[in-house]
Amino acid sequence: MTERIDGHTLLIGLMAYPIRHSMSPTMHNNAFAKLGLNYAYLAFEVGNDKLPSAIESIRTLDMRGSNISMPNKQKVIPLLDKLDPAAEMVGAVNTVVNDDGILTGYTTDGIGFMKSLDDEGINIRGQKMTLAGAGGAGTAIAVQAALDGVKEMSIFNVHDAEWENAKRNVALINEKTDCHATLHELEDRDDFKKEIQSSFIYTDSTGVGMKPLEDKTLVDDPTWFNNPDLVVFDTVYAPRETKLMRVAKKAGVKHVFNGLGMMLAQGAAAFKLWTGEDMPVDYIRQILFDDKK
Amino acid sequence: MTERIDGHTLLIGLMAYPIRHSMSPTMHNNAFAKLGLNYAYLAFEVGNDKLPSAIESIRTLDMRGSNISMPNKQKVIPLLDKLDPAAEMVGAVNTVVNDDGILTGYTTDGIGFMKSLDDEGINIRGQKMTLAGAGGAGTAIAVQAALDGVKEMSIFNVHDAEWENAKRNVALINEKTDCHATLHELEDRDDFKKEIQSSFIYTDSTGVGMKPLEDKTLVDDPTWFNNPDLVVFDTVYAPRETKLMRVAKKAGVKHVFNGLGMMLAQGAAAFKLWTGEDMPVDYIRQILFDDKK
Repeated sequence: MTERIDGHTLLIGLMAYPIRHSMSPTMHNNAFAKLGLNYAYLAFEVGNDKLPSAIESIRTLDMRGSNISMPNKQKVIPLLDKLDPAAEMVGAVNTVVNDDGILTGYTTDGIGFMKSLDDEGINIRGQKMTLAGAGGAGTAIAVQAALDGVKEMSIFNVHDAEWENAKRNVALINEKTDCHATLHELEDRDDFKKEIQSSFIYTDSTGVGMKPLEDKTLVDDPTWFNNPDLVVFDTVYAPRETKLMRVAKKAGVKHVFNGLGMMLAQGAAAFKLWTGEDMPVDYIRQILFDDKK
Repeated sequence: MTERIDGHTLLIGLMAYPIRHSMSPTMHNNAFAKLGLNYAYLAFEVGNDKLPSAIESIRTLDMRGSNISMPNKQKVIPLLDKLDPAAEMVGAVNTVVNDDGILTGYTTDGIGFMKSLDDEGINIRGQKMTLAGAGGAGTAIAVQAALDGVKEMSIFNVHDAEWENAKRNVALINEKTDCHATLHELEDRDDFKKEIQSSFIYTDSTGVGMKPLEDKTLVDDPTWFNNPDLVVFDTVYAPRETKLMRVAKKAGVKHVFNGLGMMLAQGAAAFKLWTGEDMPVDYIRQILFDDKK
């Protein structure tokens, strides 16, 4: 079989630094090939310094769009022409679509979170969520969950650089959605435990538990998970089972998820924005992860 | 087999307009795949207006380089950092190599011409060539042939926009190489016939005879080719046999070539500049042209 790239192939980028080990090029190129779509997805090492000219190159080279990752998700916003409402609320963009030179920014991380729960038959709309972490992923999850109908949200974070951002985000959610959001200090362990125990779902978006911090978790006491109907969701997918997930399973929690489905679903949402087509997610999961999901 | 593009894949471009029907992406991507080289070659519709920012994108996106075609071969020169001596003499660039942000311009059309003759066992060094056409391809052929040791060159062109360029080129060849070059008016048929008949090789670089001008040729009288040892070379390769070639064969000329070998060899020369590797030319010829060469 000859190579599928020809003179008609349109480029889609990924602009981040570091980025060479990203799985996104493998994900998207295999999906293009499977569906016979004439695009190629390449990663470019772009930090904040090169970001303005990298975004200009989307226009110059008539790229169909780009993914945007660290450290560019916020910095990209003033360089675009339009923002999707969710991206505007989150204050971050992970996907750019180029429609004849008009660049629109989207955020698909939150969409990926909700979609991955839907795919598992878990409906958190109308329910309460406790969310650890108010960084990029956490903010996107909080906004999308609120927009989609989660009723109550308790967001926990340490008093770090993200705190002011978290305050702004909580205020926006309360102003623009029907969700009631509150911001809590992660250091207050009693409060943290109480909120988790009164929630339908506990989501950890902090990245704690990710390699090389595999032996870490914000909740290491199984008695916190005394409700077997609680949903426990960790956005980490490497390792596939985090320490948080082991603690929850040990406590008898039935619905415990890693971030693999979210990762695939956020990519599929970007794929849909660029191509109008549904990514063949099961096929892509097989290619990326030959172990069980 | 999964797609070969991953996060480490480096981009190589082709900047021209129009360009979507180019065979170069198929040529280079299949060669990369065959040799296991981690590059992807994509065409971008770039005219003179977008050329400066397109060249800037080579630096921004750390592209390994680019091919440059019409209408950008001259306009690209002031945008580069360095020029190969042949490209400087030709006054045109068809290949850009990016070495850590330093962009060097090359011309591989003339190299392709000489290489394709070498591959056929034809050595024109020390001989006389009559060359019709002083456009981009003709100038590149003339310069490389002169640099490589062709002894005498009679260049024919009409009095059009290229005439001044042709005069400059002839003067440069006489100044910088051991070749003696002269410029002639294509309208002077007696002179044209005499120069062809006193030459070792007649090369037509005008593109006359190319689709949709398949029934045209500058020489339609077989008696001009009364020397069966003359080499007749047409830079056209679509159709595979031009009217000029048919006239020459009818006259009994033994060595008659189209531009296919030159096209492959100019691509292989660019491929070598970017990757350091030899393009698998026979394999690529099979993929691009399933008919006989």
